[in-house]
Amino acid sequence: MENLRLAPTERVDELGRRDYRIIQDRSAFCFGADAVLLADFAEAKKTDKVLDLGTGNGIIPLLLDTRDKGGDITGLEIQEASAALAERNFALNHAEERLKVVRGDIKEASSLLGRAVFDVVVSNPPYMDRSHGLTNPEEAKAIARHEILCSLEDVIREAAACLKPGGAFFMVHRPRRLAEIMEGMRRYRLEPKVLRFVHGSAGAEADMLLIKGVRGGKPWLKVEKPLIMYREPGVYTDEVYEMYFGRSRSEREEQP
Amino acid sequence: MENLRLAPTERVDELGRRDYRIIQDRSAFCFGADAVLLADFAEAKKTDKVLDLGTGNGIIPLLLDTRDKGGDITGLEIQEASAALAERNFALNHAEERLKVVRGDIKEASSLLGRAVFDVVVSNPPYMDRSHGLTNPEEAKAIARHEILCSLEDVIREAAACLKPGGAFFMVHRPRRLAEIMEGMRRYRLEPKVLRFVHGSAGAEADMLLIKGVRGGKPWLKVEKPLIMYREPGVYTDEVYEMYFGRSRSEREEQP
Repeated sequence: MENLRLAPTERVDELGRRDYRIIQDRSAFCFGADAVLLADFAEAKKTDKVLDLGTGNGIIPLLLDTRDKGGDITGLEIQEASAALAERNFALNHAEERLKVVRGDIKEASSLLGRAVFDVVVSNPPYMDRSHGLTNPEEAKAIARHEILCSLEDVIREAAACLKPGGAFFMVHRPRRLAEIMEGMRRYRLEPKVLRFVHGSAGAEADMLLIKGVRGGKPWLKVEKPLIMYREPGVYTDEVYEMYFGRSRSEREEQP
Repeated sequence: MENLRLAPTERVDELGRRDYRIIQDRSAFCFGADAVLLADFAEAKKTDKVLDLGTGNGIIPLLLDTRDKGGDITGLEIQEASAALAERNFALNHAEERLKVVRGDIKEASSLLGRAVFDVVVSNPPYMDRSHGLTNPEEAKAIARHEILCSLEDVIREAAACLKPGGAFFMVHRPRRLAEIMEGMRRYRLEPKVLRFVHGSAGAEADMLLIKGVRGGKPWLKVEKPLIMYREPGVYTDEVYEMYFGRSRSEREEQP
């Protein structure tokens, strides 16, 4: 294995597809199922110009790239250390021609990157609003999880502004914020078109949602079949297994 | 069986609980799974004052009554023939002391019945908006299914106006209208609190939704486990079976 020049808090994880790897900083935000679900849910053609609002260490552009989604993907990230890590991650996977990082504020995305220039915008934004108690608001993890530097409305407004008419927005978020999400998307003419809820098990309430909105779309929402994460404790359902690894469990067991 | 004095287009159906029966007019709207799901989803204490907006032949008050939900239930119905049938149905089941019919327009519910006087409002309103083609807009079925006489916004506005602060609204509707439902409920300070989607099978998209809103409630939505109607074609899941009959399949087979 080549020398990756890892900092003491860094580690390397595999992405499960095409031997892509990612350097993550344990003291910052590390990707979870939400990033994988979003990359799977998002739709983008091989020629689409894609924007990821709040890209962190670049996980979503990388996951999209392993799925041949998007031709040219820009990750916008405000935190300097995260933006630098995203850049290293794109290079590590020899994807720097397709994947770019811009350091900047989501609140200014459309003035930094242009209005109506993207075919697709994706985002895995902070889930928690500012009313939820914070111990250290300056911390990198807190910025990724709480709406310290940008609100849900900022994300939706800038996504709408950056999208071409008819362009699509894909977001992963928490069901408890759904009313605000719907109301905000309609305020900025991002009509909700597809919604999917993610449940830990078939008998559990939803703990994530995936939503697609279309810039200037007509009202008509499809609520897809529920996405169930585990068929028994610790064992992914076949659908989730394939999302992670791009092939079925039996195929993988045959080719270790 | 006593003489029910049925008109030629009328039939009598059992409600599956407490030997309650309902006279339905085949030429008008006959109740379906949506009424049963709503009655099951709605919460009301034995002392609550309940309003059903657009009660039709009175099915929802009857189903609530078989579940001991609500003390005093008013059904508001604009169509004369439906309102008269609801009255006969309440008498047929000896429930006329608890269940009342008021003939009137949903758009005027709060001026007819009073502002902030109900603990609970339920509704199974027309699902289709006016943009969907109609053959005969005067027909009773069309009025029950299409927004000819009242819009989704009318239902939400009047539900909010009739409810006491902290009172709850329960509605069954179509997922494709969810964005309008959410936006409308927030506009009238009926905060969405609980949402449940109904799927024909575990692998099908949702075709109904059940929503609870609270007048003046705080934002925080729970999306419950999916409700699956059929475990195989023509066979209800255990959960739905119990909703209909109030007991499990095995209990019912023992006591035919």
